[in-house]
Amino acid sequence: MYSDEALDFLKSAKVNVGDEIRATAKDLNIEGEIMPNTEATNRDIIVIKLKNGYNVGINFRKVKVTKVKSGSGMPGFPKSNLKQDKGLPNVSLIYTGGTIGSKIDYKTGGVYMLVKPEELFYEVPELAGIAHISSNELFSISSEDMSYREWQSIANEAEKERRAGAEGIVITIGTDTMHYAAAALSFMLKDLHIPVVLTGSQRSSDRGSSDAFMNLICSVYLAAKSDIGEVGICMHSSSSDDKCHFIRGTKARKMHSSRRDAFRPINDMPLALVDIKGNIEYKNSYSKKSDIIGRAITGFEEKVALVKAYPNSTPDIIDFYLQKGYKGLIIEGTGLGHTPTSTRDENGSWLPNIKNAIGKGMIIGMTSQCIYGRVNENVYRNLRLLKNAGVIYCEDMLPETAYVKLGWLLGNYKKADAANLLNKNMVGEIKERLEYDEFLV
Amino acid sequence: MYSDEALDFLKSAKVNVGDEIRATAKDLNIEGEIMPNTEATNRDIIVIKLKNGYNVGINFRKVKVTKVKSGSGMPGFPKSNLKQDKGLPNVSLIYTGGTIGSKIDYKTGGVYMLVKPEELFYEVPELAGIAHISSNELFSISSEDMSYREWQSIANEAEKERRAGAEGIVITIGTDTMHYAAAALSFMLKDLHIPVVLTGSQRSSDRGSSDAFMNLICSVYLAAKSDIGEVGICMHSSSSDDKCHFIRGTKARKMHSSRRDAFRPINDMPLALVDIKGNIEYKNSYSKKSDIIGRAITGFEEKVALVKAYPNSTPDIIDFYLQKGYKGLIIEGTGLGHTPTSTRDENGSWLPNIKNAIGKGMIIGMTSQCIYGRVNENVYRNLRLLKNAGVIYCEDMLPETAYVKLGWLLGNYKKADAANLLNKNMVGEIKERLEYDEFLV
Repeated sequence: MYSDEALDFLKSAKVNVGDEIRATAKDLNIEGEIMPNTEATNRDIIVIKLKNGYNVGINFRKVKVTKVKSGSGMPGFPKSNLKQDKGLPNVSLIYTGGTIGSKIDYKTGGVYMLVKPEELFYEVPELAGIAHISSNELFSISSEDMSYREWQSIANEAEKERRAGAEGIVITIGTDTMHYAAAALSFMLKDLHIPVVLTGSQRSSDRGSSDAFMNLICSVYLAAKSDIGEVGICMHSSSSDDKCHFIRGTKARKMHSSRRDAFRPINDMPLALVDIKGNIEYKNSYSKKSDIIGRAITGFEEKVALVKAYPNSTPDIIDFYLQKGYKGLIIEGTGLGHTPTSTRDENGSWLPNIKNAIGKGMIIGMTSQCIYGRVNENVYRNLRLLKNAGVIYCEDMLPETAYVKLGWLLGNYKKADAANLLNKNMVGEIKERLEYDEFLV
Repeated sequence: MYSDEALDFLKSAKVNVGDEIRATAKDLNIEGEIMPNTEATNRDIIVIKLKNGYNVGINFRKVKVTKVKSGSGMPGFPKSNLKQDKGLPNVSLIYTGGTIGSKIDYKTGGVYMLVKPEELFYEVPELAGIAHISSNELFSISSEDMSYREWQSIANEAEKERRAGAEGIVITIGTDTMHYAAAALSFMLKDLHIPVVLTGSQRSSDRGSSDAFMNLICSVYLAAKSDIGEVGICMHSSSSDDKCHFIRGTKARKMHSSRRDAFRPINDMPLALVDIKGNIEYKNSYSKKSDIIGRAITGFEEKVALVKAYPNSTPDIIDFYLQKGYKGLIIEGTGLGHTPTSTRDENGSWLPNIKNAIGKGMIIGMTSQCIYGRVNENVYRNLRLLKNAGVIYCEDMLPETAYVKLGWLLGNYKKADAANLLNKNMVGEIKERLEYDEFLV
């Protein structure tokens, strides 16, 4: 397994395990293929397989490498003989990073994306019988490094694939911020009218307990067979490998740092359950698939922030964002949507700062850090004071979804329209009435 | 019901419904008792009952009032004839605000705390058979306005009551920030070694569906009868009025903005279930009650903040707190404990800012916004980078608990000790191993 530093070196040289490269160093000038490092003791050694069959090992600090030719991936990775069936629904797979659909070699530290259908079919032969698959790696970015720019790229790619004939789209993506991406794509792709299924894995594909393959199979089934015209997340619905659920993109949240069934619907039921035989059980109302192809609406205002209010929290945080030119804030308030309002303490009432910011043109929306339930601006006086100051109460919307929605609104609408639309339902992000059984589902 | 403005007027004049007052205005100088406003149309009218039995109504804007004598509370509020039984365990009730234990009159907008046992026993006669109760109203502060100063006052009062003979303590408190208070008191009162039970209500006491009375009965049972020497929250365990659960103060979170069973244990099981007949079913390990009375440890550093990391979030937030002289930050990271690390965007990597702040002496702890599960600094490279920068990974601790703990540690320990103790278990806030059934309990 290569050391972090050696991997950095390969990355900065833009070469990967499997690539043909030229390596130069003192008294050395060779061509060959980069191999996995299987050294137990020295993980800084770059291993190069020469054309004559010999391997050369050299410390990365002492060598320069340049790419001669991209490799075909992990050396010796097997391929399937399964042929694509053109009679099956066209499903487009877009890889954006995350461990799903990738083969990690822990001995080498190398990661190889199973991008080509013939490689994917070797690992997951079931897929060949579900859909006619086209696939490409859009980029490979860690969950924590996803920004609105990647969401925009994914949305544009999805529209392109749709216009090229895709009847359903599966996007593999890192899980930590998948629900932010799903909310963003729900708005950006609201006029695509086909199933857009985000999926990922909590355990990497080379572990026996991986959820990657089942998530992928269920996602392709949803993309190929379901009549849902919405963006959502398809992941394990329980820790047993029996079913996945498809959760509306604006109502999903990663609720556990490591469990396979970490993604849960919040204030909503799953749109559907699906098993690995392709049985789809619908559990909710949803927008139907249609032939209309609208544009991806990808504007996004980056000067929007998510702020949590809590005991002793300083209202100066509002001024901080105001001074940085932020145009919108979503507050994660306590309970029904409170901020501190007391004037007893130095870290006192948020009201004057909120009033000031709204007066200077900032849009401020309120959500609840309880996560479940809805905010309500009318129950208590301190809530009414915030409402009267111009704070927009965002009903039962998730804080993360409200944050993404405000960024998207300000990126595509005039300010007054953005403010007006923030707490109106557009794509299922707000429900008029919560059902009893939607808590801790 | 009085208007907000009229209530403000009464409040600033320091008088309440039920008080005897002198009212002066043009051509008016009377003495009488302030009555509820039952006007449907003009809620600004202050209603005063004269000694001769007549009522006078006058717009608050036209009158000056001064208190002659404090009233005995809501006029006509009934009292119980039940006597206290000195043979029962001594339980001290501390009122700090919130709707529980209070009688709200929606017609008047007046709120009356049922502070005296004989009033409380009229509403909840069961209590007279459970404990010998002493009670006092420490203050009356809304949940959203609770700060560490109130937590300190409560802790000092609890120690005083303990020294005066209380065998258990019940604290009624607003629910929105109850879990922050419970975490703070868990640390502040860790050496008290008796049950300290925080309770409240999601629906006010005068509504038929109120959870107030059952929560109070179950809480007094726990305080009087249980052998748990910890601080916790006692609230409805389900929406049916059958049982309450007692959740460890550092492992509790308000997970719904309005449901009666909003408080849930996170990464833990309840310490106990209790019903209104006083049956206590223990569900977890806990510290036992003892006769040792330690001091309340109430120091608290107010320059500590809770910060959420999310896609597009700006790392400048770290500098903002650093410049304001903050000594500690808890980050709600994504997944296993990530912040953005990419250097592609302007709102880019948090790493340099974190390194800089730690270099200048700030303590930075990492938790997960997933809420459930634990952080892990070793799984991915970006996690190791944060760890190597000096970020302290806080295991399975709740973000809110970690925030309160860091404030408490910095208020009572030297900095190096605070940093060292942050991710070591002190009062049950960190569990070595999570059980399968502790998710979405």
